[in-house]
Amino acid sequence: MFDAIFGPDAMRAAVDDRAWLQAMLDAEAALARAQARAGVIPAEAAEAVAAVCHADRYDVEQLARAARSSGNPVPALVAAAGVAWFHHGATSQDVVDTAAMLVARDALALIVADLDGVAAACGRLAEEYRDTPMVGRTLMQQAEPTTFGLKAAGWLVAVLDAREWLRALRLPVQLGGAAGTLASMDGLGPLVLREFARELDLEEPTLPWHANRTPVATLASALAVSAGACGKIALDVELMAQTEVGELLSGSGESSSMPHKRNPVEAIRARACARRVQAAAASLVAGMSEHEHERAAGAWHAEWAPLGEALACSGGAAAATREMIERLEVRPERMRENLHGMDTTAHVAAAGQLVDRALERWRRCR
Amino acid sequence: MFDAIFGPDAMRAAVDDRAWLQAMLDAEAALARAQARAGVIPAEAAEAVAAVCHADRYDVEQLARAARSSGNPVPALVAAAGVAWFHHGATSQDVVDTAAMLVARDALALIVADLDGVAAACGRLAEEYRDTPMVGRTLMQQAEPTTFGLKAAGWLVAVLDAREWLRALRLPVQLGGAAGTLASMDGLGPLVLREFARELDLEEPTLPWHANRTPVATLASALAVSAGACGKIALDVELMAQTEVGELLSGSGESSSMPHKRNPVEAIRARACARRVQAAAASLVAGMSEHEHERAAGAWHAEWAPLGEALACSGGAAAATREMIERLEVRPERMRENLHGMDTTAHVAAAGQLVDRALERWRRCR
Amino acid sequence: MFDAIFGPDAMRAAVDDRAWLQAMLDAEAALARAQARAGVIPAEAAEAVAAVCHADRYDVEQLARAARSSGNPVPALVAAAGVAWFHHGATSQDVVDTAAMLVARDALALIVADLDGVAAACGRLAEEYRDTPMVGRTLMQQAEPTTFGLKAAGWLVAVLDAREWLRALRLPVQLGGAAGTLASMDGLGPLVLREFARELDLEEPTLPWHANRTPVATLASALAVSAGACGKIALDVELMAQTEVGELLSGSGESSSMPHKRNPVEAIRARACARRVQAAAASLVAGMSEHEHERAAGAWHAEWAPLGEALACSGGAAAATREMIERLEVRPERMRENLHGMDTTAHVAAAGQLVDRALERWRRCR
Amino acid sequence: MFDAIFGPDAMRAAVDDRAWLQAMLDAEAALARAQARAGVIPAEAAEAVAAVCHADRYDVEQLARAARSSGNPVPALVAAAGVAWFHHGATSQDVVDTAAMLVARDALALIVADLDGVAAACGRLAEEYRDTPMVGRTLMQQAEPTTFGLKAAGWLVAVLDAREWLRALRLPVQLGGAAGTLASMDGLGPLVLREFARELDLEEPTLPWHANRTPVATLASALAVSAGACGKIALDVELMAQTEVGELLSGSGESSSMPHKRNPVEAIRARACARRVQAAAASLVAGMSEHEHERAAGAWHAEWAPLGEALACSGGAAAATREMIERLEVRPERMRENLHGMDTTAHVAAAGQLVDRALERWRRCR
Repeated sequence: MFDAIFGPDAMRAAVDDRAWLQAMLDAEAALARAQARAGVIPAEAAEAVAAVCHADRYDVEQLARAARSSGNPVPALVAAAGVAWFHHGATSQDVVDTAAMLVARDALALIVADLDGVAAACGRLAEEYRDTPMVGRTLMQQAEPTTFGLKAAGWLVAVLDAREWLRALRLPVQLGGAAGTLASMDGLGPLVLREFARELDLEEPTLPWHANRTPVATLASALAVSAGACGKIALDVELMAQTEVGELLSGSGESSSMPHKRNPVEAIRARACARRVQAAAASLVAGMSEHEHERAAGAWHAEWAPLGEALACSGGAAAATREMIERLEVRPERMRENLHGMDTTAHVAAAGQLVDRALERWRRCR
Repeated sequence: MFDAIFGPDAMRAAVDDRAWLQAMLDAEAALARAQARAGVIPAEAAEAVAAVCHADRYDVEQLARAARSSGNPVPALVAAAGVAWFHHGATSQDVVDTAAMLVARDALALIVADLDGVAAACGRLAEEYRDTPMVGRTLMQQAEPTTFGLKAAGWLVAVLDAREWLRALRLPVQLGGAAGTLASMDGLGPLVLREFARELDLEEPTLPWHANRTPVATLASALAVSAGACGKIALDVELMAQTEVGELLSGSGESSSMPHKRNPVEAIRARACARRVQAAAASLVAGMSEHEHERAAGAWHAEWAPLGEALACSGGAAAATREMIERLEVRPERMRENLHGMDTTAHVAAAGQLVDRALERWRRCR
Repeated sequence: MFDAIFGPDAMRAAVDDRAWLQAMLDAEAALARAQARAGVIPAEAAEAVAAVCHADRYDVEQLARAARSSGNPVPALVAAAGVAWFHHGATSQDVVDTAAMLVARDALALIVADLDGVAAACGRLAEEYRDTPMVGRTLMQQAEPTTFGLKAAGWLVAVLDAREWLRALRLPVQLGGAAGTLASMDGLGPLVLREFARELDLEEPTLPWHANRTPVATLASALAVSAGACGKIALDVELMAQTEVGELLSGSGESSSMPHKRNPVEAIRARACARRVQAAAASLVAGMSEHEHERAAGAWHAEWAPLGEALACSGGAAAATREMIERLEVRPERMRENLHGMDTTAHVAAAGQLVDRALERWRRCR
Repeated sequence: MFDAIFGPDAMRAAVDDRAWLQAMLDAEAALARAQARAGVIPAEAAEAVAAVCHADRYDVEQLARAARSSGNPVPALVAAAGVAWFHHGATSQDVVDTAAMLVARDALALIVADLDGVAAACGRLAEEYRDTPMVGRTLMQQAEPTTFGLKAAGWLVAVLDAREWLRALRLPVQLGGAAGTLASMDGLGPLVLREFARELDLEEPTLPWHANRTPVATLASALAVSAGACGKIALDVELMAQTEVGELLSGSGESSSMPHKRNPVEAIRARACARRVQAAAASLVAGMSEHEHERAAGAWHAEWAPLGEALACSGGAAAATREMIERLEVRPERMRENLHGMDTTAHVAAAGQLVDRALERWRRCR
């Protein structure tokens, strides 16, 4: 009930059990195709494998239960598939890790699209309010004048930074077999690895990364930074929308006890999502150093939930921030009032120079 | 799919959407009864309210969607209930926080039951292997002799500590109304508060704790410690069950690529759960200082998911640890071999004295 | 340079290298006395040991360097002491863990004293402003009236909760010897353990807790909750002291660029300290499940810095909060203005009932 | 006492109070020079400013104390400098943030140098043991054969990934003035910003990032990943050096109670450091979303200690890992024994192909 509040439907669908199952099946099908192309398995086998790689054929709940005794759902999936050459030469983690990267890629596309929306809306605000003076606040006290355009430009730059990082992320396939040597690939391991990556349009890693979790930790870090950028924007909106400040109006939120009140619900959702991403990311990053030997006993299994959480809530943060910024009501007259007659000339001029730098960067990366 | 691997079914049901919904409805019904008893609302009103307080009457998914615009599901629930005096004088957070404590109580009962099982199993191991020498290992190297009984006694004491804390937790009702003054209770606030707590058999707090989150942070801390105790046991089992050590056999785990292998799946599940609890608890504890004014804009909303996670995965850790310890195969002959002829007399005698201290404590608290 | 900003001098001295060194020496002296009393070592030996247990005799920096090759400073300390029976039958962790509890006890006394000051100041505010109306704010928007007395009463209760927990903490001695069996105590382990605890006025644990870190995790949790309570108060002060809100004035803070500005420096220090405690505590709690076998290879060593940090910054948070509250300027007229004529009668009356509950509790625990 | 155990002296010096002070003075001097070049201040003024920018002229402890009332040391530093045009147009955070980047750059150079050493040592191991079979271990159980060369190649790749990220980090100057507009630069803000960055050889940011903390969060993430890579290597070494496994010998560690024991002290230090970095980094990343308005009241101040900790302990982890790997004793015969006659032909051949991929990458980036 609660998660529906935070996440847009598309994101929830991108990281739900069915999405994971289909991603695992996509990995199995791609592996079979790659092996067929490399000559490790017959071409017909790959077709037969691909034919059973549709999530509809499987009962997620049943797989999950059967999985309890093996610690992951792949053995049950292999049994349920019931086709020769399915999962040939692979280990469970090959499939789950590759599926995680596929799930991540789909989720990232949604996140980046919403960050694009946030950036566009911030860019428009920066342009429109380039010369609109407001009081700058430091250490939670009024300080010197700034402009609302520069405030929005600061949000814009943070979002552009986050977006660039997310887009630059390299998501690798995972393939190593039981102990990470690719020994079951008839000496054709590197070739299968390359074809597997090409098949799924994921990166080809130098080595299997079963127990070297840089890809997961880096992804988690980038998600945390993107959610953090959204959380900062939402914090500013909440602060500026305070009744006594009144420089922004935001939010559709109704109150169960005070119908007249307008709660900044999108900002609230964004901030709550940001906190959740940060917790999940911290867990994923800290897990890096706990992966024993060739494949870990616990640290790997502890990644699945926080990875889903980090993706979903980064998406929730981006979507909420986009809604928030796109619908923001800006009140320049209140900004003016809160300046209480401070002279703003020099500050507006200086801020404008900075706004232009941000807008120029935004234009370059559109 | 993945969460079913970690949690027993009863625990999953205890913290799922339906459980939260019913807990919210239980809170609403109890509030109405308390208000009727205090004379704030008519007695018949309380009956009418109670009559609609069954989760079956509501569509969880629909509530969740309607909730997006208000940031929590209570306004939609109030609308769907459609009964006079439902939610009278309360604020959304009164209901969600009280529901959280009800959900926590049910989940804690499951956790404590499993910890009882762990303690009993550890106690039996401590008794049975009181004088069974094995090598103690420090800094990941063999050190001096100890006994397996003392190892198990150490686990026992950690579990007893955790269990005592969980049982001593005080879970308070939440009731304050819109701004935490109980102003809508016709001057009968303290009386309603007392009756409300009595009705639900929860603690009566000194004050509403909408923005003073000690109860949540304390609960989270206790869950983290209980999961940490389980995680430590699981780590020891994994280490002692290593092929080269061979002093314990544990686990039903099958491998998708190596059918002969016996993976310590219960230990793996326990360790993965422990990590997840720790991440969730850290987030809940850190959230304490971010609750603004009378009720927070984000920090509260960020609690729901980690609270469910902390409860479910503490339960998952306890259940997995229980399965693990109850089915543990102990191999004293291998313990003997790994001692390579060290003289163990003094160590066994000394360890026995300590084992007896632990067993005595265990007997006292049964 | 930076840490001096956060911590009062007494607290810095309580957790600095010299305090740790003296605490280790106190542990060694107490151990020798306990062993002499139990008959494990000669009485004169205990005197000789005690005679070298003064921090002035040792060069901290030299111990630290010598310690690099052993991973902790105790072997170098034993060598430097150069007295027979010094450290007899003990392991490094016995001394460092016991020292940690001694350091913690001294630091806790400082923290509790400052929390007493915070409670007293909050109690006075709650009394003085029991009937002073102000607007309650929820979800960062003005909501219904409340009173400043109730706000202060909420702070008071949170601090009382934290203080009670800190005072109830049980800090145990550590004693187990090389593998935790007390085998080097001539069969008198439990007796030595009891005398050791009595000597230092610390708790006698059921068993050595070298690798069962409940005491550390519980201490960390209590510190995080106490700092969290301070952080919440500081957040409220910052928000109420905003230029546009103006209901409180707080802080001595000068600005390097705006001499006219009054920054809420004590609140800032309290909030920064709270964050640091939370990070340290999360690390300590999560470490629980990583202590291998009888004594850990890394997880133990990772505790020292965050434990010092958690103590020092909890103290920093409490001290800053005390300064902040004791010097707070309350502006009831501005509170009145921000109500914009809302009728406050019912809210003030209801809030007063709640304030009285908090004050009653405060009086009981003084 | 304890920190000296973890960090090499050079790193301790790179992040100590004096280093921070000199970095702040370097920032002030560079700012004056940049302003002189841009025509904002007289050229002689810049020389006069530079003349007082030597740490020896200042009393760190006294600055720290004076700083307590302003929340940071810059106002006291400005007062102590006592020269006209010193700190002209800047705000405290400009100086502290820029100093942080300078400190970070020096610390990063040390970290990268040690990671280079780790990579070189891992590369040599991968080459030398390219065809040395050992048993692969998954889920803490023996699984299929692999080679020690592939194990080392996995470490190598993780370290190369970390090193690449650290080297690619962009560390920006901070310059914005009181409210981030550069309004005190006579309309020459962008020019001064460029010259300031050039003067210090740091990045020129698009905008001031006083409250948009992407640079800090990204730096923290990269440090956590580098420490995580080291922690993983250290974990493997500890596991392989277990008495019962015996495939590696590592460590100079003496025990205070068991002189015969050889503790893996470097691995222990590396793992302890990794945990500390992770905690610090999590705090820095989570702080991102808490920076209010133009400059934060607490979240900024909470960064200083964890940033120093993250740098110092990443350095400690890298240095310890380097010592550990450079002195590692590899025991191929024990690896052979632990295989118990498994056929390793296919695995050695397949693993060799993967080792070559890693070595090729290593050669490319040398």
